[in-house]
Amino acid sequence: MNFDEDQVIALLAQIFGKVNPGVLVGIGDDAAVVLTSPKSVITTDTAVEGTHFNTDWTGAFDIGRKITAANLADIYAMGATPEYLVVAVTLTGNETMEWIGDLAQGIAHEAASCGAVVVGGDLTRGPMKVISITVLGSCAKVITRAGAKVGDSIYLSSLPGWSRAGLSVINQSDVDDLEAYAIEQFCAPNVDYFAALSFAQAGATALCDVSDSLITQAQQMAKASDVSFVFDKTGFTLDSEFVALNELASKHGVDVWQWIFAGGEDHSFLATGRDLPGLCIGRVNEGSGVHGLEMKEAPDTWRHFN
Amino acid sequence: MNFDEDQVIALLAQIFGKVNPGVLVGIGDDAAVVLTSPKSVITTDTAVEGTHFNTDWTGAFDIGRKITAANLADIYAMGATPEYLVVAVTLTGNETMEWIGDLAQGIAHEAASCGAVVVGGDLTRGPMKVISITVLGSCAKVITRAGAKVGDSIYLSSLPGWSRAGLSVINQSDVDDLEAYAIEQFCAPNVDYFAALSFAQAGATALCDVSDSLITQAQQMAKASDVSFVFDKTGFTLDSEFVALNELASKHGVDVWQWIFAGGEDHSFLATGRDLPGLCIGRVNEGSGVHGLEMKEAPDTWRHFN
Repeated sequence: MNFDEDQVIALLAQIFGKVNPGVLVGIGDDAAVVLTSPKSVITTDTAVEGTHFNTDWTGAFDIGRKITAANLADIYAMGATPEYLVVAVTLTGNETMEWIGDLAQGIAHEAASCGAVVVGGDLTRGPMKVISITVLGSCAKVITRAGAKVGDSIYLSSLPGWSRAGLSVINQSDVDDLEAYAIEQFCAPNVDYFAALSFAQAGATALCDVSDSLITQAQQMAKASDVSFVFDKTGFTLDSEFVALNELASKHGVDVWQWIFAGGEDHSFLATGRDLPGLCIGRVNEGSGVHGLEMKEAPDTWRHFN
Repeated sequence: MNFDEDQVIALLAQIFGKVNPGVLVGIGDDAAVVLTSPKSVITTDTAVEGTHFNTDWTGAFDIGRKITAANLADIYAMGATPEYLVVAVTLTGNETMEWIGDLAQGIAHEAASCGAVVVGGDLTRGPMKVISITVLGSCAKVITRAGAKVGDSIYLSSLPGWSRAGLSVINQSDVDDLEAYAIEQFCAPNVDYFAALSFAQAGATALCDVSDSLITQAQQMAKASDVSFVFDKTGFTLDSEFVALNELASKHGVDVWQWIFAGGEDHSFLATGRDLPGLCIGRVNEGSGVHGLEMKEAPDTWRHFN
């Protein structure tokens, strides 16, 4: 054992103990007490060592950032703003205080980038590391997946596929600049939360993030909205990053559409509506299903129970 | 693999999909949207297979009940009422659909016993089972650990120690009625949530649950309130269950005070105040520390990082 629980809790209380006017009771009691708006948004997401992260590949700060970003993105994907986080961490006991501190700093850093704070948590011991984060946010007008209307266009906030590209090359001994960029997107993506706010402000009719892959989440959105989604590959090719991603895919003998459509773990936002900002990639029609997302191989949907 | 993720999600959506007027968006979108009061209480707690539960000892329904109860008790321990839960479950993939269904039914059952509902969750895969639950509740008047006043009496809602007693005898091949009762308290405690409400309504000045052991949580409460706690063992012996617990301890050659003071995993509530209901076990004095909780052995505080 490299530490004792009291030391760890003291460290976490110090890192997460930022004063915030919305926090009436923070870390150190049975539960936290926070000021909330009449409509609250809540989501939870877990990262398991070996399944979602690997400490050989990624440092603790970036692991903390990435799992926090995944949660924050889900709040923005409802047209809401994150406010408070609780963090449940399972440690093996072999971590150093420095590693734990870096993990907590990564979580706090990503939360602070959205104006949110960690207000509580739980520390347990187990055979491998597990991090579960729950985020509570507030919203005035909720945007679900069910609001896409026939005649809407379909938009992405950025080109997906970089995270899957990064996973493909992470074990290489030498990487070029493009590969290094892809690895960074896999290990610690920079989520453009503002893009989700922009979609909401521009009147998006449906909104979600595409962390489970574009094809999976487009299917969910089309089904929830009782419409069909017709994609046009030309839209993707107009993105300023497409040439670079295509070059990287060609170098590795991969179909670039595989990464874009079925890669997963990207935190781009998918929206429908009229005259939205972002990359216009298709149209909402009557009918059902998703059309135009053809790949050379069957999609690997990057879900955890396949 | 005994199931696929879609089947599991459909099963969970069915079990947790209870209609509730406070839930504007439930399972199936990026996040849930719920109606909240101006002051919300939030807590998270994790149970790890092998550390907190063992599927050889406990069925899935009771595992679900116990981890849920631990979370709900933390909300009541703030003088608050639980409303919404999100559940993050890591499975190995070797579980049967029946086991997963029973786990979810246990969670839903315990939540419903408090009028609360599961509004979302996350399903991931890992090398062992991990269950993280976050509960969101509402409160009018918060009761922290910091409000104990000199001259207050100290109260417990019920006699702790049964859970630790149950753990001591769980591997026996034959058990008598007392031992069976203790094992039940360990595997699936019946938490008297109403006792916490009664403490709050009677004007408790400080309140917490004693899941980390009475001695640990009394120390935390005395320190947070800047007072000393002086316990009187006579108070405990007046409880109607004391004779039975003492008999069980004697039979197994254990100091009963070890179980009562340092057992842990009991969900009795500890409160300070005047003329409260429950078992009166001591007085709040000036000074610091906890006095009168002597045991024959050094306390095993039942914390996970010792």
